[in-house]
Amino acid sequence: MDTHIKNGLSRIFFGKPIHNEEAHNQTIGKAVGLAVFASDALSSVAYATQEILLILAIAGVAAFHLSLPIAGVIILLLAILTMSYRQTIFAYPDGGGAYIVAKDNLGEGAAQTAGAALLMDYILTVAVSISSGTDQIVSVFPNLLPHQVTLCLGLIGFMMLMNLRGVKESGTAFAFPTYFFVIVSSCTVGIGLWKTFHGTLMPVEGVEMIKTTLQPLTMFLILRAFSSGCTALTGVEAISNGITAFKEPRSKNAANTMVFMGLILGFLFLGITYLSVHIHALPSESETIISQLGRAIYGKGLMYNLLMAGTTIILIMAANTSYADFPRLCALHAGDGFLPRQLTYKSGRLVFSWGIIFLSVSAGALIFIFNAHTSALIPLYAIGVFMSFTLSQVGMVVRWQKIGKKQAHEHELNGQEEAHHLKGWRFKQMINFIGALASGLVMAIFAITKFSSGAWVTVFLIPAMVWIFFRIHSHYKRVGKFLTLPWKKISVTSYPHMKTIILVDDVNTGTLRMIRFAKTLGHPWIALHVNFDHARAEEVQKKWNEIIGESELVFLYSPYRLLLEPVTEFLRKLKVEMPHGVVHIITGQLVVPGNFGHLLHSKNARGLYDELQKIESVIVTAVPYHLEKREKKAK
Amino acid sequence: MDTHIKNGLSRIFFGKPIHNEEAHNQTIGKAVGLAVFASDALSSVAYATQEILLILAIAGVAAFHLSLPIAGVIILLLAILTMSYRQTIFAYPDGGGAYIVAKDNLGEGAAQTAGAALLMDYILTVAVSISSGTDQIVSVFPNLLPHQVTLCLGLIGFMMLMNLRGVKESGTAFAFPTYFFVIVSSCTVGIGLWKTFHGTLMPVEGVEMIKTTLQPLTMFLILRAFSSGCTALTGVEAISNGITAFKEPRSKNAANTMVFMGLILGFLFLGITYLSVHIHALPSESETIISQLGRAIYGKGLMYNLLMAGTTIILIMAANTSYADFPRLCALHAGDGFLPRQLTYKSGRLVFSWGIIFLSVSAGALIFIFNAHTSALIPLYAIGVFMSFTLSQVGMVVRWQKIGKKQAHEHELNGQEEAHHLKGWRFKQMINFIGALASGLVMAIFAITKFSSGAWVTVFLIPAMVWIFFRIHSHYKRVGKFLTLPWKKISVTSYPHMKTIILVDDVNTGTLRMIRFAKTLGHPWIALHVNFDHARAEEVQKKWNEIIGESELVFLYSPYRLLLEPVTEFLRKLKVEMPHGVVHIITGQLVVPGNFGHLLHSKNARGLYDELQKIESVIVTAVPYHLEKREKKAK
Repeated sequence: MDTHIKNGLSRIFFGKPIHNEEAHNQTIGKAVGLAVFASDALSSVAYATQEILLILAIAGVAAFHLSLPIAGVIILLLAILTMSYRQTIFAYPDGGGAYIVAKDNLGEGAAQTAGAALLMDYILTVAVSISSGTDQIVSVFPNLLPHQVTLCLGLIGFMMLMNLRGVKESGTAFAFPTYFFVIVSSCTVGIGLWKTFHGTLMPVEGVEMIKTTLQPLTMFLILRAFSSGCTALTGVEAISNGITAFKEPRSKNAANTMVFMGLILGFLFLGITYLSVHIHALPSESETIISQLGRAIYGKGLMYNLLMAGTTIILIMAANTSYADFPRLCALHAGDGFLPRQLTYKSGRLVFSWGIIFLSVSAGALIFIFNAHTSALIPLYAIGVFMSFTLSQVGMVVRWQKIGKKQAHEHELNGQEEAHHLKGWRFKQMINFIGALASGLVMAIFAITKFSSGAWVTVFLIPAMVWIFFRIHSHYKRVGKFLTLPWKKISVTSYPHMKTIILVDDVNTGTLRMIRFAKTLGHPWIALHVNFDHARAEEVQKKWNEIIGESELVFLYSPYRLLLEPVTEFLRKLKVEMPHGVVHIITGQLVVPGNFGHLLHSKNARGLYDELQKIESVIVTAVPYHLEKREKKAK
Repeated sequence: MDTHIKNGLSRIFFGKPIHNEEAHNQTIGKAVGLAVFASDALSSVAYATQEILLILAIAGVAAFHLSLPIAGVIILLLAILTMSYRQTIFAYPDGGGAYIVAKDNLGEGAAQTAGAALLMDYILTVAVSISSGTDQIVSVFPNLLPHQVTLCLGLIGFMMLMNLRGVKESGTAFAFPTYFFVIVSSCTVGIGLWKTFHGTLMPVEGVEMIKTTLQPLTMFLILRAFSSGCTALTGVEAISNGITAFKEPRSKNAANTMVFMGLILGFLFLGITYLSVHIHALPSESETIISQLGRAIYGKGLMYNLLMAGTTIILIMAANTSYADFPRLCALHAGDGFLPRQLTYKSGRLVFSWGIIFLSVSAGALIFIFNAHTSALIPLYAIGVFMSFTLSQVGMVVRWQKIGKKQAHEHELNGQEEAHHLKGWRFKQMINFIGALASGLVMAIFAITKFSSGAWVTVFLIPAMVWIFFRIHSHYKRVGKFLTLPWKKISVTSYPHMKTIILVDDVNTGTLRMIRFAKTLGHPWIALHVNFDHARAEEVQKKWNEIIGESELVFLYSPYRLLLEPVTEFLRKLKVEMPHGVVHIITGQLVVPGNFGHLLHSKNARGLYDELQKIESVIVTAVPYHLEKREKKAK
């Protein structure tokens, strides 16, 4: 058992390795599922209202009342999407992310586009959630403002480690904070509404509003505000991507979790937006809307602190949704040959370590570039999600069409009346059609109204990613074609000639090992020495004659102190002599025990090895000589 | 010729490679030498006075008049050091850095200590000079304050590239700025003195002094201020380290350059300190003393801007002294086996690329950690320099003693009167003795008075570095002993048994190449397949039987999806069967053309290769199969 565990450090960080047969036990129930997959969607209430007000502020405080109808339309959209995705979850019980649905019904181009859009958005989810989370912290502790970026990066590093340990542990670890937020924010909205009803909720005071140049209230501005508010809907698709993580019956569990999530999200978003207008909350650089709401409802007491803590934690946890989904989606791309195959490798803990690391690094970079400024990240966000929503729903529409045709055909064959069943798929198709239309419309509005403030990045990056995916794919197709053999008996022959060349730097213990290997192989061999300095060459020649005294030592003078080039030149000439033969080059490799010993020895040998391997008809062997073991023997 | 040049990019950054025989042409004259080696010493006038005032400020503004006598003592020290080092330069015409002098006269322990101390200080020179340089910039453009760290890092990156191109180019590039500073600062001091004489130099106004808690003026405080002022002397040793860079007669050229430098430095430091007291300059967070001096003498006109530009540039160039010396010193350590041997390798441009890169990264890290805050870096600085001064001068004292004894012995043999010659070395020894005493005293004062404010870092780091150096040394001694062969004829025998094992993942084009190589070698061979999943194993077995149909394919089941461990276990068993034999393992290596192709293929093979090599009696060959070439052939 112990030989299977590489080292203790790896176990501490990544936990015990998992046996192949244990894999299916790593699933989660509805309660934990909500915590893992819903935190993204739920947490967006922390910034969505604020982002709406931030845009409306351009038209003046009087425009703030528009946030309520805007929120209403967004809730309608949420209802449409929840209904549409419920159908997807049942249609694809093995995981019905946009990638799979698009691939299944619309082909590879659509699938890669949907996937690229989602991958972009998962990265942005981490960046936006962590930025907004630290915005809340800074609202409470303004003196932390200069350290916000450091705080963000520390949090991302922590989450990376948590997730490298595996999905189950993180699910459990994140369940408490999610529910804590749901309770504390629901209480806040509830108490707020109760106070409003009794007329005891007063406007908030002491907020310094951000400064903007006033512009007239146009339809364009309202649509921009609407786009910002749509960030509230990011994350609703997470469950449909992660169905396989649920306990059986997984479709039903996942679908119910999704409806629950939609209800909570709708209630919180509408409530917060309504109360924000009521308390005259102002978008500000130094205090979030949630903080203003907390102050207005509770004053600066215990409940205020609980609300802020809950909001901060849910936002940090929201990033975890991406940690659950991003590596899964990468593995799908990789499995189909559109991303490096390494991304499909399950590590000892059955998590997709590479995806987790890439996500952390990218999100960290975004936060660093945008200085943890949430509003600056928002225009890049959400467009990818709505693109994938659209492709997924269009895929579902096509799917129903196919099913309908198939059913009609079967009924025709059986001579049955088809009207009743026909209605069934038509109705479902209509739901997905409305979903596709609505999300397509939002995507277009988002891209147009946010284009100049940042959406252009996403609009150009997604096609670029798709292009790269297809480049990778064509590479794998080429390699596959190259490697495949015809299914028939092949008789493998030897090379007609083989010449063995030993590369020596000096005559020492290592040289002896190389010669010993060469002699054991039993093919003709010579030794080769690249020299930079004639005096040393003479010394090596003398040693060779007196200590070895057999075969031949050839010298190559290299006035530019290069190693590779003279050897390559020598091999080129040899190739002319034996065009069908193979050259076997033997180099030495000192193997030093311990973790740091190898740093004290030149990497020249390794570089030379890599370069020589690139030459056709050359095979290189590095004969190891072990420092420690030899010494022990000598004692 | 073109085959010797690795690629175009490398030439653009590092220039044309240099032939072995061209190396000695890379030397510089006195004028360029002053620019390259003196900028460190000269530039320290930009902060030394300010650092004195900063400490005296703790005792109140009235204590500022003490800066003049303090500066006087420092000038005396400068004179002593210049005289001492002149002797060193003539005694060691091949480069008389503290490292060499200490090694030659005091042994390896002292040499390593001196070297460690200097290496520390070279890094700090870069950090302090660049920080102070940007302080000047910020004095002129206060709105750049938030970007100071970024500015520093950008400058370090720029200097790294300049220096990777080689010493001659950088010498020429830096000559103009050094002389520009010497002229503009001398003018400033001259005009300032002239105005003082005529009573027209008025106190500077509008400076906000730093806030400190007042303390009584103690001897300890005065010594602390003196220590801070001693930073003016950092860099005076640079020339003695770099003698070989000078044109012949190099000792004379170097010694004269050193005296020039001492005179200029003394004049500027004393002048600036005198004038600062006269204009009532105040140490401030937002404006440097040089800026205050410029304003008082010129007002905010053209001359002020020239002074500030000159000071900024000389500080930035000062870091270049370290870029000339740090890699040279690293190469000395490495040549003696106290640092990784790679540091001695001369790259195509005969510069020590590794040292340059290490210096840049370390200095960048210091600036990042200390937020480009010059005063915070000062307590770490200078102590190393004075430690190396002391060791170097003590070494010289010992050297004169030896020479004296030798001379006395010779004279005695020749029966001559020895009094006259004796006096010669006794006088020289006395000079170095005074130098040793003075610098030892300063070092002690520095370590004690600055200990709690940062010198402790240096005090602990230098011994730690020395410890590491000796660890490295003992490693190289072990390796050398291991590799050395007795100088007598050795007859190399073959291994009694050799078993060839092919590691296969699948039966494909690569497998054929491996089998072909194995068959050419002509030793008995088998194939080995590590499988994670039984279905796949059956498929591979079937392919093997039908396509290859010879030898044997052994399966190793690995339930934990590990590759290395099952193979190691298999080899362990084999080893029992043939204790004196050797196992030759053949793996495959897909060689993909282009820079990015290899990223799409797993690094598992490489990791496996490295691990297998660590096993004794195992030799691994990776047979390459070339994607592109094979395809071309097929066409």
